[in-house]
Amino acid sequence: MSKNLTSRAEDYSKWYNELVVKADLAENSAVRGCMVIKPYGYAIWEKMQAELDRMFKETGHQNAYFPLFVPKSLFEAEEKNAEGFAKECAVVTHYRLQNDPDNPGKLRVDPEAKLEEELVVRPTSEAIIWSTYKGWIQSYRDLPILINQWANVVRWEMRTRLFLRTAEFLWQEGHTAHETRSEALAEAQLMNQVYADFAENFMAIPVIQGVKTESERFAGAEETYCIEALMQDGKALQAGTSHFLGQNFAKAFDVKFTNNEGKLDYVWATSWGVSTRLVGALIMTHSDDKGLVLPPNLAPIQVVIVPIHKTDDQLKQIGDVAKNLLTELRSKGISCKYDDRTTQRPGAKFAQYELQGVPLRIAIGPKDLENKTVELARRDTLSKENVVLDGLVDKLEALLAEIQETLFKKALNFRNSHITEVDTFEEFKTVLETKTGFISAHWDGTAETEDKIKEITKATIRCIPLDQKKEAGSCVFTGKPSTGRVLFAKAY
Amino acid sequence: MSKNLTSRAEDYSKWYNELVVKADLAENSAVRGCMVIKPYGYAIWEKMQAELDRMFKETGHQNAYFPLFVPKSLFEAEEKNAEGFAKECAVVTHYRLQNDPDNPGKLRVDPEAKLEEELVVRPTSEAIIWSTYKGWIQSYRDLPILINQWANVVRWEMRTRLFLRTAEFLWQEGHTAHETRSEALAEAQLMNQVYADFAENFMAIPVIQGVKTESERFAGAEETYCIEALMQDGKALQAGTSHFLGQNFAKAFDVKFTNNEGKLDYVWATSWGVSTRLVGALIMTHSDDKGLVLPPNLAPIQVVIVPIHKTDDQLKQIGDVAKNLLTELRSKGISCKYDDRTTQRPGAKFAQYELQGVPLRIAIGPKDLENKTVELARRDTLSKENVVLDGLVDKLEALLAEIQETLFKKALNFRNSHITEVDTFEEFKTVLETKTGFISAHWDGTAETEDKIKEITKATIRCIPLDQKKEAGSCVFTGKPSTGRVLFAKAY
Ligand SMILES: [Zn+2]
Ligand SMILES: [Zn+2]
Repeated sequence: MSKNLTSRAEDYSKWYNELVVKADLAENSAVRGCMVIKPYGYAIWEKMQAELDRMFKETGHQNAYFPLFVPKSLFEAEEKNAEGFAKECAVVTHYRLQNDPDNPGKLRVDPEAKLEEELVVRPTSEAIIWSTYKGWIQSYRDLPILINQWANVVRWEMRTRLFLRTAEFLWQEGHTAHETRSEALAEAQLMNQVYADFAENFMAIPVIQGVKTESERFAGAEETYCIEALMQDGKALQAGTSHFLGQNFAKAFDVKFTNNEGKLDYVWATSWGVSTRLVGALIMTHSDDKGLVLPPNLAPIQVVIVPIHKTDDQLKQIGDVAKNLLTELRSKGISCKYDDRTTQRPGAKFAQYELQGVPLRIAIGPKDLENKTVELARRDTLSKENVVLDGLVDKLEALLAEIQETLFKKALNFRNSHITEVDTFEEFKTVLETKTGFISAHWDGTAETEDKIKEITKATIRCIPLDQKKEAGSCVFTGKPSTGRVLFAKAY
Repeated sequence: MSKNLTSRAEDYSKWYNELVVKADLAENSAVRGCMVIKPYGYAIWEKMQAELDRMFKETGHQNAYFPLFVPKSLFEAEEKNAEGFAKECAVVTHYRLQNDPDNPGKLRVDPEAKLEEELVVRPTSEAIIWSTYKGWIQSYRDLPILINQWANVVRWEMRTRLFLRTAEFLWQEGHTAHETRSEALAEAQLMNQVYADFAENFMAIPVIQGVKTESERFAGAEETYCIEALMQDGKALQAGTSHFLGQNFAKAFDVKFTNNEGKLDYVWATSWGVSTRLVGALIMTHSDDKGLVLPPNLAPIQVVIVPIHKTDDQLKQIGDVAKNLLTELRSKGISCKYDDRTTQRPGAKFAQYELQGVPLRIAIGPKDLENKTVELARRDTLSKENVVLDGLVDKLEALLAEIQETLFKKALNFRNSHITEVDTFEEFKTVLETKTGFISAHWDGTAETEDKIKEITKATIRCIPLDQKKEAGSCVFTGKPSTGRVLFAKAY
């Protein structure tokens, strides 16, 4: 199977598209821009969800659910937010179909079932949630509200790509309400930190934490924190964002509270989200020309066992060994599979699990039965070794942890070696086209310069890193004074 | 708080509506017929999801995700299904908003962004899923496909009630594909059994398994299995359905496979689902005039500890005892909370937890510190006792199991005492209006009779029980011959 995979060097974009489909992660659907997430891809998303959900609850958040639809009048209440999303909204205008008199057996929209007010399919839920919070908040005693929602959202993107940019996607969106500016700011920062920890420790994806420039900010936010990752083709990917919304939504929806001094004030807000886009980031960070490479934390199958036999008797004996291993592995919480299908040859199974990124593969043949050994193959390094059965499960457990760490370090080395400081615009353009990656450069702080650089190079300011050094310099484009470097890159 | 709750005897329907809101489970939203599921209500749904998901995976199913939208041409492909849902569909016709030139600051639908083909917001996913399965199935080797999806769906209901009937609701929908009729039938039966086990063992709701009559069947199904529960007001509630779809969807979407004899045949299908409606069933099965009563399996908080103190020093000492209890309880997987808010008096806290159905409440006061005791209150029986701290956690664990069982038995007794065999239509009407509940009666098997009975009495055939006894009789309405009794009831 993997023979048919385009290599990354040949065409990175094609490699990605093919891999998503061939590894059975997702496919395009009959609905423009919407994907079908297949069981193997969804199992990866479920692992992400479980860990994120645990982290959200540990930081005091609860889940809830708000409507899919936003009435137009609510949608337009916070003007900047509305403006930001108006051009990509799916709009429900009718609530009934009827038999089409001109086409027997076909249906048409019932013209008499037109809604009085159109409903926008949520592209994000600030509007519907803040119109709800209005009823929940009277006093400081009702604050903070720390809520997360797991949901689908729709943004009518014109150019879509599986996981990276789809018209409908799955995500979580946190929406919190606070008494003070500083509390809300701290929440936005905390959740960005949670995302960074999740990306690095769970997904083995190194990220840079920063804030967006004004032009890259979420529509309606006063500050957008983000985590930015670097893909193997040297393009950046925004993997998560956390917004400090100030009092914008409270003002738009008139959400006031009595503070502990008896004074009325508008409530402070944050929102933060990550989506199925993370699956795209995962693929593009770790995978290779043979297919997926999955960090063990995210692998639906961490260890697969394949029997290699000539006789039924051998298969039975191998099955006994395998089943003991499965029991032991499961008792340690390691997900594993014994693939004794007789409709597929071992070679085809090897290729499948390589393509699907199973971290560890064990093959057991007749010789192994005699010697009490197995053949152990590691997906990330593609190395193989013969190891003794005795103590195997402990070894596998240790190896899984090692692979998780190795993948992170490898990605970190790649990322670190692709942050290049440049001081002239010529250098900027050369690095962007040849070495690629993040470019660390001085910028004069204006949207105008940012725009011009984008027009000329297609690179955008990914973020102003949280750990930015104060450093006097001059803008790489205008030569005007700057107080620190920001990170530019072409991005997904 | 509970003082304000209308009693069941006074107005059952009002009691329900008030309880849902006062117990902080859900509320109506700004979107007609759509609800906001609040954190406490959502936590109950999460417990249901976790258990169902475990049961689905244990029976070999995997999760996946399919698009929210169904293009009209796919939606209408299976005619009966389309006909069944056409009248309650939210339809997306446009993909963009624009500034309204007549109303500065407002938006309107951009008339130039009309979709070529309208998109139906899924009321159920057979159409989009079977159009996808077509690409997945060529041979018997590709079968069975055993997939479940957790999703939101929209049915534009005219009369809505929180949890019981909402325009948008959350559910899971299983969609499976099989080689043979008998395999698909077995799957539909298995999943109905899974639902019955879940309802009875996890939710403590006794259910009757049966099949629907033709007129009550799912649109597009050849057989609909169901679980029917009985609410405290004597009305039935369909708590889950599992459909044998025959080859209807395979034919509508031309999904054929080569069987192991090399012959082409259409694929056999099932679908099955339960929804947030179950939260409504839960409330109406167990709760009382003081508020929610939750089976421990579904209680977001199983044990709550409330301090009763006069001095800060007492509060500190009580806090130490409470924290030890919490640690021990959590190590046993019991969810618990120590409510030391100083903004609320103990009485208000008691009322709140009573209203919210927390199964066990512990109060600790200064006397308890001296005596090494606590006051333990049980929500289901409203009984209180003083118990010694020593061995308390084991006692609590045992009590939770006992409450779970007690609630089931109580509901079962109620249900069993509300199944009434009647042999005349006079009796039928009398029982329906006075005793209420299920009426077990002979029926001549025609839709005409079923319809007439419904018109006259508002009772429908809830199901033909799977354990129906063969028994010659005459139809309660027409006197025509019948071979067994079916269950009628008024229903939610
Ligand atoms: Zn490079
Ligand atoms: Zn009664």
